[in-house]
Amino acid sequence: MSSVIHCGKYDVHVGPDMFRELEKFLARRQVFGNVVLLVDRNTRQHALPLIRERVPSLQDAPFIDVEAGERSKSIDTCTHIWNRLTEIRADRQSLLLNLGGGMICDVGGFAASVFLRGIDFIHVPTTLLSMVDSSVGGKTGINFGGFKNQIGTFTRPAAVFISPAWLRTLPDRELHSGFAEMLKHALISSREKWDALSQTSALKDMDWIPAIQDSVLMKNRIVHADFRDRHVRRTLNFGHTVGHALESYSLLHDADPLRHGEAVALGMICELYLSWKLCGLPEEILTELAAVIRRLVPAPVAPVDPEAILGIMKSDKKNAGDRIRPVLLQDIGRPVINHPVPGELVLEALGFMTRIAGEAALNS
Amino acid sequence: MSSVIHCGKYDVHVGPDMFRELEKFLARRQVFGNVVLLVDRNTRQHALPLIRERVPSLQDAPFIDVEAGERSKSIDTCTHIWNRLTEIRADRQSLLLNLGGGMICDVGGFAASVFLRGIDFIHVPTTLLSMVDSSVGGKTGINFGGFKNQIGTFTRPAAVFISPAWLRTLPDRELHSGFAEMLKHALISSREKWDALSQTSALKDMDWIPAIQDSVLMKNRIVHADFRDRHVRRTLNFGHTVGHALESYSLLHDADPLRHGEAVALGMICELYLSWKLCGLPEEILTELAAVIRRLVPAPVAPVDPEAILGIMKSDKKNAGDRIRPVLLQDIGRPVINHPVPGELVLEALGFMTRIAGEAALNS
Repeated sequence: MSSVIHCGKYDVHVGPDMFRELEKFLARRQVFGNVVLLVDRNTRQHALPLIRERVPSLQDAPFIDVEAGERSKSIDTCTHIWNRLTEIRADRQSLLLNLGGGMICDVGGFAASVFLRGIDFIHVPTTLLSMVDSSVGGKTGINFGGFKNQIGTFTRPAAVFISPAWLRTLPDRELHSGFAEMLKHALISSREKWDALSQTSALKDMDWIPAIQDSVLMKNRIVHADFRDRHVRRTLNFGHTVGHALESYSLLHDADPLRHGEAVALGMICELYLSWKLCGLPEEILTELAAVIRRLVPAPVAPVDPEAILGIMKSDKKNAGDRIRPVLLQDIGRPVINHPVPGELVLEALGFMTRIAGEAALNS
Repeated sequence: MSSVIHCGKYDVHVGPDMFRELEKFLARRQVFGNVVLLVDRNTRQHALPLIRERVPSLQDAPFIDVEAGERSKSIDTCTHIWNRLTEIRADRQSLLLNLGGGMICDVGGFAASVFLRGIDFIHVPTTLLSMVDSSVGGKTGINFGGFKNQIGTFTRPAAVFISPAWLRTLPDRELHSGFAEMLKHALISSREKWDALSQTSALKDMDWIPAIQDSVLMKNRIVHADFRDRHVRRTLNFGHTVGHALESYSLLHDADPLRHGEAVALGMICELYLSWKLCGLPEEILTELAAVIRRLVPAPVAPVDPEAILGIMKSDKKNAGDRIRPVLLQDIGRPVINHPVPGELVLEALGFMTRIAGEAALNS
């Protein structure tokens, strides 16, 4: 069963017959012959042939491909996309179809949003993470000067087409990574949503369509209230202050680094600890939530240097004035933004997370 | 006497006491200490010391400087600006003050509009052209892949501060260049506006404040009706189809190339000729208008290769399908967009323009 979620100015289609919906959308917009596909080396191999086969009007659509991986979220990739769009003679009626994960959606959205002062783009996310996170909400961006999303725009896609079919071949860790963001949406939304999601027994048996719909709805409600990210939208950053630091650290130190959502899951455990210490989150809820997060997102925890993690957090531009300001929870569904946290408590929280994760010691 | 023109979401201040207005604006916004100035090598030398002296809160404001000239309207300049903003630790509350001509306003506006997904910027235009053209209307952009404004955004400035004081030291040809756009605004607006402006005897004696106010109002009325440039805003392109081609040609062939507005003035004469041939513009009006344009914007006309000019026009992405589509005039104040014009007529128009300009021959 397919459904449409109206996100203000665009629709998110979730369902198994996504290809038919996409074909109908392209027909309605009369952009046949003017669609350009953006893929990375992974989606070029598997997703591109499939979408061309199933959506007849895309059979001869030109494509632009970029290297896979977060490193491609760069100005150089944009330059490549703009050069190719210019070669293809894309005009203001052209439409860029981003076929891939979060990197493709973010960089493709940005490149399109400024090409000829903005051409339309649509997202066809192929990872769980990009289905529930980057493809919804109208943020585009690239990394620059060592900072994530330093350059970007707030531009809504013309539409999003989500099919759980892509998830069948997704590696477990990528599934966990996306599920962490779904848990986060529930945690900052309501006890009811959290209870529903936390009863999941195994991701393999998940009924993805309603779960993704629910997560997109939760995110969209928050985005709709604060599109430009000035207040309540920042609650979506829950788990990300510590999570981003763990992710950066892991990228530098681990052969097989943490996935984004895995780092967010570990970050959430730390920030729940801080919520207990500083915001009155009951201890039994901390214990309950941490256990559920570990069970459903069993991210590997390699030994970390907590002082180094703290240093990364302090250099983050979002933590102005040397104070760490994560999103904390007074309770499930009751997030608080801009709560300053002393560095020592962050070290404690990292220790708690490492114990919970069943690891022996920091600094080993 | 100073005045404020409300352009929808931002104000354009025109008057001699622009510095005081700017100081008041910065105080109201409470951005003291968080303003970054963007200058080129010219405005760094003269305008930067003056603005710092006259606006006390800018005394210690950091600045970013770029090479002067159209070549700096590039992605490399943006990279430089973003690097400097990152170094300065600019945040979402920072404001970029663009102090210069059209290039500075365009590139600074674009760089700001995507830094951290958009920080505020204001324009302090220092040339007549940028006062009446690029600083008003909310278009930002850079050149890319050989095309003008290929990358950019529609983003309104937070405010514009126009002082005719900057014009005192502006070279004559720069003054002519800006005046050509003012003539264009009048020509596409109404007979009344045209009659008022065409009675100007010498630019030296011009009463600039009311004239600039009037021109900004005319442009703003058109922009307001079609911010995203889908229909009536395109009438602002009058004179530019042929004008851009003459400008590009001159850049390649002349030691001292045509200024933008000079090329537009010559382009307007050509497009008036086409309007007479194709749109019923009375011949006596063609003769009258061409004479006034030549008198007030005496652009030098070097010999040109008309076939080469035509080739440049055909490669322009705005002229899709090999047809040239300039804006034509049925009468003063009655522009028509998307009128296709055969190449031979363009050659005739170039011949007419060259005769009017009192030059001997094409292809000499």
